[in-house]
Amino acid sequence: MSPGEPGAVDVSVGAEILVRAIPGVPTVERGDDLLELIIASLARARVQLRDGDVLIIASKIISRAEDCFVDLSTVEPSEAAKALGAEVDKDPQLVELILRESESISRKRKGALIVRHRLGFISANAGIDASNATPAGAPAHSGPWVLTLPCDPDATARSLRANLAERCSATVGVIVTDSWGRPFRRGTVGFAIGSSGIPPIWDRRGEPDRHGRKLEATVIAVADALAAAADLVAGQADEGRPLILVRGLRFSSSSESSSALRRDPENDLYA
Amino acid sequence: MSPGEPGAVDVSVGAEILVRAIPGVPTVERGDDLLELIIASLARARVQLRDGDVLIIASKIISRAEDCFVDLSTVEPSEAAKALGAEVDKDPQLVELILRESESISRKRKGALIVRHRLGFISANAGIDASNATPAGAPAHSGPWVLTLPCDPDATARSLRANLAERCSATVGVIVTDSWGRPFRRGTVGFAIGSSGIPPIWDRRGEPDRHGRKLEATVIAVADALAAAADLVAGQADEGRPLILVRGLRFSSSSESSSALRRDPENDLYA
Repeated sequence: MSPGEPGAVDVSVGAEILVRAIPGVPTVERGDDLLELIIASLARARVQLRDGDVLIIASKIISRAEDCFVDLSTVEPSEAAKALGAEVDKDPQLVELILRESESISRKRKGALIVRHRLGFISANAGIDASNATPAGAPAHSGPWVLTLPCDPDATARSLRANLAERCSATVGVIVTDSWGRPFRRGTVGFAIGSSGIPPIWDRRGEPDRHGRKLEATVIAVADALAAAADLVAGQADEGRPLILVRGLRFSSSSESSSALRRDPENDLYA
Repeated sequence: MSPGEPGAVDVSVGAEILVRAIPGVPTVERGDDLLELIIASLARARVQLRDGDVLIIASKIISRAEDCFVDLSTVEPSEAAKALGAEVDKDPQLVELILRESESISRKRKGALIVRHRLGFISANAGIDASNATPAGAPAHSGPWVLTLPCDPDATARSLRANLAERCSATVGVIVTDSWGRPFRRGTVGFAIGSSGIPPIWDRRGEPDRHGRKLEATVIAVADALAAAADLVAGQADEGRPLILVRGLRFSSSSESSSALRRDPENDLYA
């Protein structure tokens, strides 16, 4: 890898990456200043950001700070949402909200509603989260409450990265994650739904292998791999580990957003 | 988590995992003793395995040791392989080998052939690898050579784990990985195609969240997440980083194999 090459990523030979949960991040409430909260959490943990660190943030705390709480009891389901809710055995108010957050339905079946989210990716229930989704100070008898995904996770990542550069004097990468199920595989892993600074994709096509032949499957989903590692260490964001530091990766700054990870429906054999 | 609970995984609060490439692993040739090669590589790197370490092995070096090399020029394509090769614009000898390694075709299109592998998972080209796939001592004018996936990666993981326990006095987890593309997403990440000792899936359904509600999306694909992290650090197995150590994860031993990660076709909306 030539240093400075756009989109290049490397892990030094013999080196290692450290995936570290920042302890003691407080519960985020609506209106909290996420930048200040992150800086305070890093300080409490005595972590000084360094150039090349990657900060990985569970989308849930961004949703909370950005007040993406919705009281389902206030959502008026359309006739279409009522019919779909009956078909897939889901609450019509939740289905209404899923539809509002989505471009189209990808798959449906009793108990499952998979959509193309307005942000472009495929996810179950439009990423709407119903656990630990009640805001502080919610009136008694309100709810049930749910959280939608952040409005624009790439923009939030960009803004946090720029502000962290200024406040912490370190050029870092920022990734925003969500946990998703997957086709073909059981269990959830973390995926990148927002990123800034770090190349979401490392495209090595055309580089030679050891015998001078071109490398083959060499478009590496860096940000998704980091999200998966971070998500494992986070366990559940519910437990107060929504902030993960990855140290040891070498990468050159990238202006690509996490949309680089989304496969166009035309190029998707499973769309 | 109660310690010792079957299938339980945890990362201590405030803790971190280290994902470390073992440097200097030599090129594996057919007939090499993988156990001895791993032990020697760890010794050279001055790494002593500890209880709870996870050793993550790129399937490619297992394929090489187990002599999964195939000289494509010796493969006789069936009429079906010839027709399919013309349809998807792939070499009929490669297509013949893909079909031999597969249970069924999942999707096909010009340039793409996605199958259900005989081992049960969905993968492009049955995981057959054409880069750096020429065995040492291959006659001039032989080939092109390719590598098929190992015969039984779960069995190899079990055997390595048992032998490492004896030779290194450490109870470790072993994961065998391959790099795959994915529906909906660009780029490859690592997946677990074999595992032993570590719970491939951490099923937390029914555990309470902070408000006493049941956790929702809480079947966590631990082995796939670790494979993704390891694959990123490995870069390309071709570069001699096929052996990755993960340290810092706490888990109780599991007798489940990586097949626990495979979603039954009946439960798969994208099968």
